[in-house]
Amino acid sequence: MADDVAVRELFDDARALAANGEWAKLVALVTSLHPADLAELVLELPEEERVALLDHLPTDVVADLFEYVEDDDLKELIRGVGVKDLPAVLEEVEDDVAADVIQQLEPEEQAETLAQMDRGEEVAELLQYGDESAGGIMSRGFVALNEGITVQQAIDYLRVLRPPADRAYYLYVVDDNRVLQGVVSIRDLLVSSPKTLLKEITQRDVHAVTTDADQEEAARILQKYNLLAVPVVDAEGRLEGVMTADDLIDVLQEEATEDMYRMVGLDEAETVLAPVWRSVRRRVPWLLVNLATAFFAALVVRPFEETIARAATLAVFMPVIAGHAGNTGTQAVTLVVRGIALGDVKLSDWLLVLRKELAFGVVHGILAGALTAVLALILSFNPWLGLVVFVALLLNVLIAGVMGAIIPLTIKRLGGDPAVASSIWLTTFTDVMGFLMLLGLGTVLIDRLAS
Amino acid sequence: MADDVAVRELFDDARALAANGEWAKLVALVTSLHPADLAELVLELPEEERVALLDHLPTDVVADLFEYVEDDDLKELIRGVGVKDLPAVLEEVEDDVAADVIQQLEPEEQAETLAQMDRGEEVAELLQYGDESAGGIMSRGFVALNEGITVQQAIDYLRVLRPPADRAYYLYVVDDNRVLQGVVSIRDLLVSSPKTLLKEITQRDVHAVTTDADQEEAARILQKYNLLAVPVVDAEGRLEGVMTADDLIDVLQEEATEDMYRMVGLDEAETVLAPVWRSVRRRVPWLLVNLATAFFAALVVRPFEETIARAATLAVFMPVIAGHAGNTGTQAVTLVVRGIALGDVKLSDWLLVLRKELAFGVVHGILAGALTAVLALILSFNPWLGLVVFVALLLNVLIAGVMGAIIPLTIKRLGGDPAVASSIWLTTFTDVMGFLMLLGLGTVLIDRLAS
Repeated sequence: MADDVAVRELFDDARALAANGEWAKLVALVTSLHPADLAELVLELPEEERVALLDHLPTDVVADLFEYVEDDDLKELIRGVGVKDLPAVLEEVEDDVAADVIQQLEPEEQAETLAQMDRGEEVAELLQYGDESAGGIMSRGFVALNEGITVQQAIDYLRVLRPPADRAYYLYVVDDNRVLQGVVSIRDLLVSSPKTLLKEITQRDVHAVTTDADQEEAARILQKYNLLAVPVVDAEGRLEGVMTADDLIDVLQEEATEDMYRMVGLDEAETVLAPVWRSVRRRVPWLLVNLATAFFAALVVRPFEETIARAATLAVFMPVIAGHAGNTGTQAVTLVVRGIALGDVKLSDWLLVLRKELAFGVVHGILAGALTAVLALILSFNPWLGLVVFVALLLNVLIAGVMGAIIPLTIKRLGGDPAVASSIWLTTFTDVMGFLMLLGLGTVLIDRLAS
Repeated sequence: MADDVAVRELFDDARALAANGEWAKLVALVTSLHPADLAELVLELPEEERVALLDHLPTDVVADLFEYVEDDDLKELIRGVGVKDLPAVLEEVEDDVAADVIQQLEPEEQAETLAQMDRGEEVAELLQYGDESAGGIMSRGFVALNEGITVQQAIDYLRVLRPPADRAYYLYVVDDNRVLQGVVSIRDLLVSSPKTLLKEITQRDVHAVTTDADQEEAARILQKYNLLAVPVVDAEGRLEGVMTADDLIDVLQEEATEDMYRMVGLDEAETVLAPVWRSVRRRVPWLLVNLATAFFAALVVRPFEETIARAATLAVFMPVIAGHAGNTGTQAVTLVVRGIALGDVKLSDWLLVLRKELAFGVVHGILAGALTAVLALILSFNPWLGLVVFVALLLNVLIAGVMGAIIPLTIKRLGGDPAVASSIWLTTFTDVMGFLMLLGLGTVLIDRLAS
């Protein structure tokens, strides 16, 4: 059985061999590894050694690596193999993986690679589907059986076909036009009499998606019905491919990461350990846009300078009023964005959500406002200051909750990604509203507040 | 094939029948539904009708519902069935589901329910495992074959056993002590000669986890090696259960939600549409703690009131210095927390992460600081103000990035959940540091700043 510690030790040995250029020994050592582990090792090596090792490995071993590498790391593996050697390698991987790899190439490289592959046409067909559609990530590696054959014929066919174990989980049953009729399991074949027709034992209650369905929809179906694979059909119901649970797990993980990142304005390709210059290019433009929104909040404060000069205690409460509402709104945004992603919140729920956030905001706002008013009284012994901070905090918390819930729902309604209703835009908004209310009220009551 | 629109229409009909109390018609209508859809319908009904419908459904249909309901909704389904009727229903669900259900009950109800079940002991055994361990979510529904039998014997055994299709994906091979040796697929059985011993065709490169392993670890193994199931063994390597991809998808989704929620201080059980009083109880205590931290930031501003009264323009820049650093730090926290969750960032990477954030902070801080200084010059024509905001922003952005990266890594090092390094605590910290630097510098240079 596989042992993590043993694998790490083997990695250390392998790195030493690579550093010394002992390729024959290294190849012998690493072929015992699972392709997923070997892929990890290859990606950890310095570029020069990576290229050399890949050059020394048999084509089918290199091909296996592509099946286990995450999308983010494909480019590095491609560079390691070299575009020139790619067609031979891709000949041995599944169509959907080949399509993923080719999508990483420049347009002219794509055409050239496809032209040199025997299976180029099949792979090119997959490239037509959207990157995040069911067609874009489905695999062609499924077993389809005609409904008109017998159980014995099916078993004989499987004996000849020898499908890899991970393809033969569901056997799909189609009619003469390749239209999906349902599934049979190998178990069904084993326990039925040899002369039974497949159509008699087909389970027809199958949840399929179309090639243009969003990959998230497929993932939700798989999750809801506890399936291990979801068949993908074209508009006429013809079986085109299958999405398996392991592919959909990657989808769900990526979508969760994307939502988390978008909410704080991060590019989904960003990682902690990316080179600095790449992070600067990815993060700084957006952060500067965000700085501009902060400037906007500052300009809202600007006209109140005279008020602040006369009652500087108001400045003490600026971070409380703005910050607390910002956090309240961030919670609401997070709940709604995640609720939408998990399918728990629908657009038609908007009135319920709005009412809920309003009711919550009233209870919470009165409590938090009262506490802040107490602090104001302790600091200033001035009940008017208490009144100003109470009203400003209550209203700002209410606005934050409602906006936090409504903004993502509205973006979703307009066909956008609700996660871009990032907490950061909301925070700018609560800053502006909080300052306006605190300093506006303070200006009206300045004679009561000035010390 | 299943059709979403048809299901929704059927739901409408069903609700009308329920409202009229036409139970016989309703039962006839809903038994055509997939249990996952029926579960959705049952949970959508008002409590009274839910109880009545569940009362009219056959026990095995009710049992199926438990297999498809998410953990959050279990309590409602249990209330609908009634604790009294639970033992009969649980008799028909898988052990791991029964254990999940029983975990939702009060201690005395647990004991009583288990005592009334024939399989009470098996289920009780599962209750010993931690809720988030592999043992806690594994299923007992696996097929184990002794390595000493022949292929023909295995096929005969499967014919008699008739395991449900979703159990027979991997056939686990064990020795006489039930210690896991590897797997064979049904395909392997079909293509091997009948007299071959299983031990000859067993694939031994199996990735198993132990019962006390964290469920996230099991999910990562499944994802890394593109598996559809991971076997679970005890300390001696004996096969105890199996975790399937559909269970692990739920795990991954829950963990992602938990991380997102914890980062903004939300209870993971919270949902947008939860009743207001429940949300108040869950969210308000934490929000008030957070309010206290905002008070702390306010108290930092307090001693500088005199400085602000003399140079009120400083107050204009308070939200810029504090807010921009807060957002920068939030990005860093998000990257590190997600990186840890996905296994991309390890503790040993701390120096790399630190160096990266420092380098990024210098580039970004100088740019953002310079832009803020320009705004200060435009607003005040005072180069000293420009200098103060430049230095305060640069330093605060640097501190925010470094703290944002180091805090979650430190919490992880201490054995905690890095996601509790919520962006909100960080924001309080950047508020305090920003105010201290801006107003502190402003106080030192007050004669240059006062208008």
